[in-house]
Amino acid sequence: MDLYPVIMAGGSGTRFWPASRAHYPKQFLNIIGSGTMVEETLNRVKPLAKEEQTIIVSNKEHHQILHTLLGENRYVILEEPLGRSTAPCIGLAALYLKKQGILDKPMVVLPADHFIAEEETFRKILSIGCMLAQDGDIITVGIVPTRPETGYGYLERGEVKRKIGGVTVYDIKRFVEKPDQKTALRYLNSGKYFWNGGIFIFTPKTILEEIKLHLPSLYAGLQTIEEAMDTSKYQEVLLSVYQYLPSLSIDYGLMEKTKRTVLSLPGDFGWSDVGSWDSVYDLRKEKRDKEKNLTQGDVILIDSKSSLVFSQSDKVVVGLGIKDLLIVDTPDVVLVGNLKKSQDIRKIIEELKKRKQHRLL
Amino acid sequence: MDLYPVIMAGGSGTRFWPASRAHYPKQFLNIIGSGTMVEETLNRVKPLAKEEQTIIVSNKEHHQILHTLLGENRYVILEEPLGRSTAPCIGLAALYLKKQGILDKPMVVLPADHFIAEEETFRKILSIGCMLAQDGDIITVGIVPTRPETGYGYLERGEVKRKIGGVTVYDIKRFVEKPDQKTALRYLNSGKYFWNGGIFIFTPKTILEEIKLHLPSLYAGLQTIEEAMDTSKYQEVLLSVYQYLPSLSIDYGLMEKTKRTVLSLPGDFGWSDVGSWDSVYDLRKEKRDKEKNLTQGDVILIDSKSSLVFSQSDKVVVGLGIKDLLIVDTPDVVLVGNLKKSQDIRKIIEELKKRKQHRLL
Repeated sequence: MDLYPVIMAGGSGTRFWPASRAHYPKQFLNIIGSGTMVEETLNRVKPLAKEEQTIIVSNKEHHQILHTLLGENRYVILEEPLGRSTAPCIGLAALYLKKQGILDKPMVVLPADHFIAEEETFRKILSIGCMLAQDGDIITVGIVPTRPETGYGYLERGEVKRKIGGVTVYDIKRFVEKPDQKTALRYLNSGKYFWNGGIFIFTPKTILEEIKLHLPSLYAGLQTIEEAMDTSKYQEVLLSVYQYLPSLSIDYGLMEKTKRTVLSLPGDFGWSDVGSWDSVYDLRKEKRDKEKNLTQGDVILIDSKSSLVFSQSDKVVVGLGIKDLLIVDTPDVVLVGNLKKSQDIRKIIEELKKRKQHRLL
Repeated sequence: MDLYPVIMAGGSGTRFWPASRAHYPKQFLNIIGSGTMVEETLNRVKPLAKEEQTIIVSNKEHHQILHTLLGENRYVILEEPLGRSTAPCIGLAALYLKKQGILDKPMVVLPADHFIAEEETFRKILSIGCMLAQDGDIITVGIVPTRPETGYGYLERGEVKRKIGGVTVYDIKRFVEKPDQKTALRYLNSGKYFWNGGIFIFTPKTILEEIKLHLPSLYAGLQTIEEAMDTSKYQEVLLSVYQYLPSLSIDYGLMEKTKRTVLSLPGDFGWSDVGSWDSVYDLRKEKRDKEKNLTQGDVILIDSKSSLVFSQSDKVVVGLGIKDLLIVDTPDVVLVGNLKKSQDIRKIIEELKKRKQHRLL
């Protein structure tokens, strides 16, 4: 089947500071050990679609990084002049496909910075989703929750719609925003909720119609961009439109409002959004040494355990009698933190902003 | 009174790795915060003796470091071609003084890498010691013990010999080597022991006679060196003699054997041999922040306490939620360790030797 992966690689974040920076975000890091996250994401969909059918939406600022990583390639790379969350990103990819005369083929929207353990299962789910999307429905992959996570949005599922190839297709009743701890626990125990992993499948026709309906200003912007496509004014128009677009996620801007049928396929393939150093430590269990240390680079550990040590500079990092620590050595910063509290990295970012040490962000 | 400080600056050690290295030992570090230890030691005796009466015995290997630190100066610098512990070092200084015709003036032997809080008291004790030494006795400064330390030698004191200027002079019965824990506790509780802080006062005549008596091969070596002094062969002869000298401390080689009267003055002036990173942390209480962190260099600490963080490179060191940690960042190594176990640094040295990473030693 002809399908069009859309890899959303324009994100930025601070949770992997100091390895990730404003100018070098997480999707370009090799923290999972087998390649950068964007490359892993591309490789994962390679059996499903040719390079020239695969769209990467990235930030113009990361042009050089992406080209250095991918080298000679046939991917379609769409560059956004500014990050404006997922709705404009998806709109731009749909617009590109429309321009190519592709309106009724499924596009598979995937974040560039997630981890998936069981790739075969993942591809099977996507293939089934693509079949369903051709009828005009919106397909999401619902991640089967494993803990009462408060950091994700949830999908409340309705009744079983049908079964295809052993996979149950659920009707989705509603998209819900990040819950508090109590609500998250209730969701988990009810067995009726999925995590929203940001994986969507629809046709360009479907999503453009939905944008027109629920995000009319984005739609107007996309029309302006469409007119400038293939002209010398494209970059200029793109920038002027993006400047005034609000940052809106596809979930909040559209999925929570749509009247269309939203179906969900259960994604039980070892998913992680790799949201913190701690999650990298969890994901790479098999790479830990017998003292449960996970190391990368030139590292010497003595009497040390349960620590994550990444040396990304040419220094040797030596740990002596340490436990549950996160050490990240980069060319201009050394971070030493409590691994179990790696979500507190945002506090460092706040402190650096307060100190106006912008070069370290 | 004419007296001759002899600053023993030839030591090497590993306890301040990675700030100290084989080619850059502790006495040349500024870890106490007010200057390098050798400079502090020199400044401490400045009110007692002119620069040209002050002898620094150092290792030839550290020639450049010493000259860079001291700049233009009038100190007498005696360079040893190899480190051979304290007996040859003291012998060489005594020989130099003898050559200058100084045989009956006190020489005050001081390690270059100790800390002393109360400098006035320290100088008063040394002055009294110098008066006593002119009679041919050997004077030691006994450090009043504050804990059952197993890392030092001890002095067992005998009866009170006399009092001078409010200071009690004790007869020393014997020098004892580093005790085990139980013995150290007994020494502490008995009130009859001092720590041997390696501070000695005697005349060149006294010490050369003692060397002749108890260390005849060192004495023979010194005679050979004496003959070559002021000739073009000096360096060559010095090397050939030193090569075959055993490493012998003045304590073990001589003090434990002497039949002379050994007197001790109690040294209760806030002494520390600054033997570990932990001791630096203890000594610099007043420099800690309100979370009991002691930092030097470009350091940012968040939710962190009771840690010692030294940045000696141009990196920023960031600590997040850490406690009781030692972090030392140098241009080629980052050490992260348990501050309370900083004596375990020797384990790193062993590991580096095993891995043949000699450039890091």
